[in-house]
Amino acid sequence: MAKEEASGKLEWRINVPDGTWKNLEAESGIVGKFWLRLKCLILGGLISRVVGFWEKIWKIGVGEPRKVIHCIKVGVALCIVSLFYYMRPLYDDFGGNAMWAVMTVVVVFEYTVGATLSKCINRAVATFLAGALGVGIHWVADHSGNEMRPIILGISVFLFASAATFSRFIPSVKARFDYGAMIFILTFSLVSVSGFRVVELIELAQQRLSTIAIGTSLCIFVTMLFCPVWAGCELHRLIHQNIEKLADSLDACVVEYFKDSGNLSDQEDINKKIQGYKCVLNSKATEESLSNFARWEPTHGQFNFGHPWKQYLKLGVALRKCAYCIETLNSCIGSEIQAPPCIRENLGDKCLKVSCYSTKVLKELVITIKKMKKSSKIDFRVAEMNFAVKELRDALKSLPSHVIAPLSIATIEQPPEAKTGEPISNANVPPIMKVLPLVTAVSLLIEIAARIGGIVDAVEELASLAEFEPAKEQKPKQNQPTNVSTLKV
Amino acid sequence: MAKEEASGKLEWRINVPDGTWKNLEAESGIVGKFWLRLKCLILGGLISRVVGFWEKIWKIGVGEPRKVIHCIKVGVALCIVSLFYYMRPLYDDFGGNAMWAVMTVVVVFEYTVGATLSKCINRAVATFLAGALGVGIHWVADHSGNEMRPIILGISVFLFASAATFSRFIPSVKARFDYGAMIFILTFSLVSVSGFRVVELIELAQQRLSTIAIGTSLCIFVTMLFCPVWAGCELHRLIHQNIEKLADSLDACVVEYFKDSGNLSDQEDINKKIQGYKCVLNSKATEESLSNFARWEPTHGQFNFGHPWKQYLKLGVALRKCAYCIETLNSCIGSEIQAPPCIRENLGDKCLKVSCYSTKVLKELVITIKKMKKSSKIDFRVAEMNFAVKELRDALKSLPSHVIAPLSIATIEQPPEAKTGEPISNANVPPIMKVLPLVTAVSLLIEIAARIGGIVDAVEELASLAEFEPAKEQKPKQNQPTNVSTLKV
Repeated sequence: MAKEEASGKLEWRINVPDGTWKNLEAESGIVGKFWLRLKCLILGGLISRVVGFWEKIWKIGVGEPRKVIHCIKVGVALCIVSLFYYMRPLYDDFGGNAMWAVMTVVVVFEYTVGATLSKCINRAVATFLAGALGVGIHWVADHSGNEMRPIILGISVFLFASAATFSRFIPSVKARFDYGAMIFILTFSLVSVSGFRVVELIELAQQRLSTIAIGTSLCIFVTMLFCPVWAGCELHRLIHQNIEKLADSLDACVVEYFKDSGNLSDQEDINKKIQGYKCVLNSKATEESLSNFARWEPTHGQFNFGHPWKQYLKLGVALRKCAYCIETLNSCIGSEIQAPPCIRENLGDKCLKVSCYSTKVLKELVITIKKMKKSSKIDFRVAEMNFAVKELRDALKSLPSHVIAPLSIATIEQPPEAKTGEPISNANVPPIMKVLPLVTAVSLLIEIAARIGGIVDAVEELASLAEFEPAKEQKPKQNQPTNVSTLKV
Repeated sequence: MAKEEASGKLEWRINVPDGTWKNLEAESGIVGKFWLRLKCLILGGLISRVVGFWEKIWKIGVGEPRKVIHCIKVGVALCIVSLFYYMRPLYDDFGGNAMWAVMTVVVVFEYTVGATLSKCINRAVATFLAGALGVGIHWVADHSGNEMRPIILGISVFLFASAATFSRFIPSVKARFDYGAMIFILTFSLVSVSGFRVVELIELAQQRLSTIAIGTSLCIFVTMLFCPVWAGCELHRLIHQNIEKLADSLDACVVEYFKDSGNLSDQEDINKKIQGYKCVLNSKATEESLSNFARWEPTHGQFNFGHPWKQYLKLGVALRKCAYCIETLNSCIGSEIQAPPCIRENLGDKCLKVSCYSTKVLKELVITIKKMKKSSKIDFRVAEMNFAVKELRDALKSLPSHVIAPLSIATIEQPPEAKTGEPISNANVPPIMKVLPLVTAVSLLIEIAARIGGIVDAVEELASLAEFEPAKEQKPKQNQPTNVSTLKV
């Protein structure tokens, strides 16, 4: 084999002596070709991965330009604090005070104002408390003799570190003071370990607190003045966007279920809308962290300091309850067995009505939350929805006659709503299995309407707690009964 | 008024000159009484709050003793690192190296081994990279003249800090290298800001890396040797506990729906079991963080380094899909309209069968995951479940005749399964609305069984990816067909 290869090489060299590239290729033989291909493959894969990665980054940046702005803000804050210290002639020690200001900026600067404030306050208070406690323990240790000193210090570090660590497991502490507990342990340990005397310690503590104050105030300044991202606003937006997504999802889901022919041009759009409920299902963690941060934020825009952020969590729970139902409804869509067309059409109209009015209720809630203004129409919208549900129930009550009775009885018992339906084509009794997915979908739709009622209640509670602007008295309110009666026809 | 009060005081003083307590009470008057009551109220409230807080802490401690052990571990690690440095005669500077070791221990020590390892590796690698880059930039700046120096340093800090901050928004980076990105920014800024020359910097970097190495290795040592809490084990346990909760919840839900008389002694237990699905709904965030940490863990117990932790997330998704359905089913239980007893009983038996066999499938999966051993029975269990579903469908198919036809037709068409049912007492046609919740529940139950199939698939994928032990060939396998046929009777 080796001999053959060698002669092969020779032959190539003799035949094509001018082409260095070809010469190289010939030299490498089969192994070389394999290597070249592998290289192309690896390089190609690498390039495509790098391109994919950059596309992802580009998407994030274009999708949320505020994230890019946040990065610039961090860079600016760090530059300011760095150069500030760099310029100072006093500064000549790496481990000195500059470090604490830089560190504070790096660690404390978060995306939302609430998160930054929460960390700043936690850091400042915890540093102060732990520093004071550490100095106290130091004083006690200093006055206890050289032998007792390390024992006292060791025991105190052990006790306070353990206690503070444990406090981080308590949910209420974890939600608000997790970072503070960590800084407490850190500062207390550092102060305790330090070999300084108390007087020196106090001086050091002053310096340290002042540098932390510089860092935190710079962070707060930059984060609040340039394109601030308020956790409260984000939470507010997230909630009303979720309600909107739920509305779209419900609407698209029911339309998809009852549509006659697949209009493929809209299909992608509809599928995307249907998936909206998934966002609602997955937003629990985001809601909770935003609500935690929002509590730290001062008055901004339409939100006061004591804004009932916790109510947003309750609203989120109500939204998710509705989303669970839509998820289940969504799985009905895929079921293969379909109800007979006449029943489908009759119930379909009613179902579409229910989903249409439910969507209207949800959209009204979106406007209420967006404008932070009580809606004058919401009661009417809910009544409309409830009426549509009632109509659906009535249509359902008249269903068994279609399902089981022969044609003659069916036509007699056919209610006026069903007149538009085709005449039942076969006298054979359609088994209930055929209508099972439909009946389930209808039942789920009714449940969804009930759960939307829960969302309405949660929004109304929010409106009263947050003191939304009262609704303007509208003149066309007198028309409402007429509207309802037209629905009855 | 003031005069009257003064005279009142005087009178009291004269009448009761011996009692200082009474004297005080008299002096304070109505305002004082109010104050006393307020004090009692506040103190009482405070005491009850403190007691409540301690009870909560006690519960956490007793419920998970490993959390207490973790706190002790943190305390021990800090004591070791503190006293180690405290004892060293070399050590006489607060801002010196000791600080970095203490800080590393405080910041890096986490509850699970995976989280600690992830932070350790992130910290070490990020410090090294940023340090090297910082020294490089420093070198360039030193060779660019005094005027260009701050500009180059400023621009580099800005660029790298912004880029690293942006990388924290990329989900895949955030999941694994969030802490590393922060440490990168911190170290790079510190090195850039420092006024040292490159030679000094390298010496400093060495010291710094060695102290970080001491801190991290101490953390890893303590966290892995004394009662280690492995994120992988936790995830594994969480998943099989969730499957078990789902099984109990489903079972309790169906039993609750079809039970005849409220057995109040078990009621609390059943209600608690029903709520089990809520844990499954809320465990997404925990699963994701545990899976992220588990990937960092070395081989431990039954888990190898490359264990397919991502598959656990897929399994979690399948579990939640099932839980959504159970949540919807749960709301059927509360519905006031109940189906006629004969239908209830007939369908009830079948439903209980389905839930019983579904539960068995889930419990078998629990055993499979717990023992990490493929089950020989699972196919049989799934077949049982599917058969029960088929029976339920059959029972449902014969339902319309009960629902709508008069007694005579009903008895003719009554299928053999329905023989046990009571004769229909009233010839009146029960409207479909009465059976609607029941039919919906049945439909949901069928959907739940289908989704349990999804869970089975996910577990089987996990079993093949994680190379679970193959099932032992069991002798009673030959009996299986007989079992199935007995079910048919």
